[in-house]
Amino acid sequence: MTRIAVIPGDGIGPEVVEQAVMTLDAFGLGLDFDHLDHVNAGTYLRTGVALCDEDVARVAASRSALLGAIGDPRVASPAYGRGVLLRLRFELDLYVNHRPARLLSDRLSPLRPDRPRAVDCVVIRENTEGLYTGMGGALRAGGEHEIALDIDLSTHRGTSRVVEHAFTIARREVCMVDKANAVEHGGSLWQRCWRAAAARHPDVAARHLYVDAAAMRMVTDPTGFDVVVTNNSYGDILSDVASAVAGGIGTAASANLNPERGFGLYEPVHGSAPDIAGTRAANPVGAILSAGLLLADLGHTAEAAALRNAVDLAVADGETTPDLGGSLDTGKAGQAVRARL
Amino acid sequence: MTRIAVIPGDGIGPEVVEQAVMTLDAFGLGLDFDHLDHVNAGTYLRTGVALCDEDVARVAASRSALLGAIGDPRVASPAYGRGVLLRLRFELDLYVNHRPARLLSDRLSPLRPDRPRAVDCVVIRENTEGLYTGMGGALRAGGEHEIALDIDLSTHRGTSRVVEHAFTIARREVCMVDKANAVEHGGSLWQRCWRAAAARHPDVAARHLYVDAAAMRMVTDPTGFDVVVTNNSYGDILSDVASAVAGGIGTAASANLNPERGFGLYEPVHGSAPDIAGTRAANPVGAILSAGLLLADLGHTAEAAALRNAVDLAVADGETTPDLGGSLDTGKAGQAVRARL
Ligand SMILES: CC(C)[C@H](C(=O)O)[C@@H](O)C(=O)O
Ligand SMILES: CC(C)[C@H](C(=O)O)[C@@H](O)C(=O)O
Repeated sequence: MTRIAVIPGDGIGPEVVEQAVMTLDAFGLGLDFDHLDHVNAGTYLRTGVALCDEDVARVAASRSALLGAIGDPRVASPAYGRGVLLRLRFELDLYVNHRPARLLSDRLSPLRPDRPRAVDCVVIRENTEGLYTGMGGALRAGGEHEIALDIDLSTHRGTSRVVEHAFTIARREVCMVDKANAVEHGGSLWQRCWRAAAARHPDVAARHLYVDAAAMRMVTDPTGFDVVVTNNSYGDILSDVASAVAGGIGTAASANLNPERGFGLYEPVHGSAPDIAGTRAANPVGAILSAGLLLADLGHTAEAAALRNAVDLAVADGETTPDLGGSLDTGKAGQAVRARL
Repeated sequence: MTRIAVIPGDGIGPEVVEQAVMTLDAFGLGLDFDHLDHVNAGTYLRTGVALCDEDVARVAASRSALLGAIGDPRVASPAYGRGVLLRLRFELDLYVNHRPARLLSDRLSPLRPDRPRAVDCVVIRENTEGLYTGMGGALRAGGEHEIALDIDLSTHRGTSRVVEHAFTIARREVCMVDKANAVEHGGSLWQRCWRAAAARHPDVAARHLYVDAAAMRMVTDPTGFDVVVTNNSYGDILSDVASAVAGGIGTAASANLNPERGFGLYEPVHGSAPDIAGTRAANPVGAILSAGLLLADLGHTAEAAALRNAVDLAVADGETTPDLGGSLDTGKAGQAVRARL
């Protein structure tokens, strides 16, 4: 049996993860789901620790993991999200955040019909460095003389491995995005690692854009992108812009990967959406497509393609939740996908 | 006479600045233009310094300044742009980067017609701190053990003054954008300054979004924004997304301001566009609208409104450069605006 750790989390997380698990189950691949149902805001509020050392070990010992969403209006402290999502990314060294953006149906595009809008790209976001290490601090905190700093850190190892990965998966082009014209130290390191990787992959075109221009192009010419590789912070932003032009965050899937270890943590990009939790309005497509990425990474290529295709068909048929124009609830929208496998 | 320093700069900079100056001249306000024509890449390549101490003093002694664009394909080093644009922003303490985004004509929107697309917002970008201070460095630079870091710095003074400014100019709402859920030190300072400013302005609504969500909303619901205030890096990115949804960077204006001193450096958001320099295809609207911001800040409110209105009319009449669908060259497009004053 292939053990998959499952962390439903908060809000709509459990609702969409249930659909993802049912969809994976439909393939009869002998996946064995290990539910960590206690990793949520309730546990955090009760004990101060939502994800403990044992939990991390359990996830690490699994073949892969599936996560719903982490976030609860009752918890103001960033320590909670940091203690779950960022802890898993950092401790399991999941240095690739793989975020595809593909327009599932023309109808979903926010862009006007006479523009190129069939976006189909992947943002590869560095996932273990950048502004996300927590390094930094504040002097004279709380008062009017406060100085706060956060360190934007890039290492040669961390940068070159993620840039290399981008070239490995690219079909035609890698566009490296940085701000080397203003943020120089990390910028020059990214430039160097990108050039070196480009030289190792002469078959793949190498393009560069500054992050402001890249964000703009993602709106004006999104079909021009194949693989975008960038740092943790710019990747966070660009992948959200990409999913907006690909029809919204409800369908956006992601994988946090360590390619060498072959381990992945899969999660929809949308958050816990507390405003609609429990209303059965949550769109399961982001979670289901994340499960599709999991299948592909486990080597179940045909099943992964069938899953993507079933999602496309369900969306084309309007068999979706209201956010995509349909009238189904979460369960029925998941069922609509499974019926098309 | 009111002296305005003019730095045409590189590429299309001189072409669009010429139109902006002619448009200002059309009002007969007795503005006296002091041209710093040597501040460009040629000077940088010859002497290593494009903007010297005397130049900075000349600009500082002016009432305001107008800048075209800085950037040249022959200059790879970020030191050039840093030495002009960032030097002026930092040394003249122009802590507010005011970037309006307004859809001039429905025809220019990249968004589909059934979406809210009449964007009319201002991104207020902190302009003297954040990731742009140059602080940081690299250890073991150039080798495979390199560690590079850039400091993302926020001070209470720097943050509270820009947030305060945002509330001062807001019509209905200030949306503060940060990433306090992951980038904690600066994040908590921004949160505190924003709450304090909100309490001082109970008449203005205060909203908060994380930067990824804000970037997405700028595509899916741009009309929901009034004033956005954020740090240097997020402001760079969000203002470009805003100008993309407002019809493209060709019409985007900006002002680098020190409100206390009443000094502003006005510049179109587009760059030097070396690919079209000299072809007379450059769109002068960004520079002309930047001159309009200058007029407003000099107290010439009626003239500023007339200028904006003339731009709107010229655009509505299709009397524009090709990027906006017209067939005029730079000079004729500028003339089309002046004819409508
Ligand atoms: C050229 C670059 C350093 C600059 C910036 O990021 O500030 C530009 O993109 C801008 O927005 O004015
Ligand atoms: C919740 C937040 C810390 C997180 C991130 O920025 O990584 C989220 O936005 C994401 O993109 O997965």
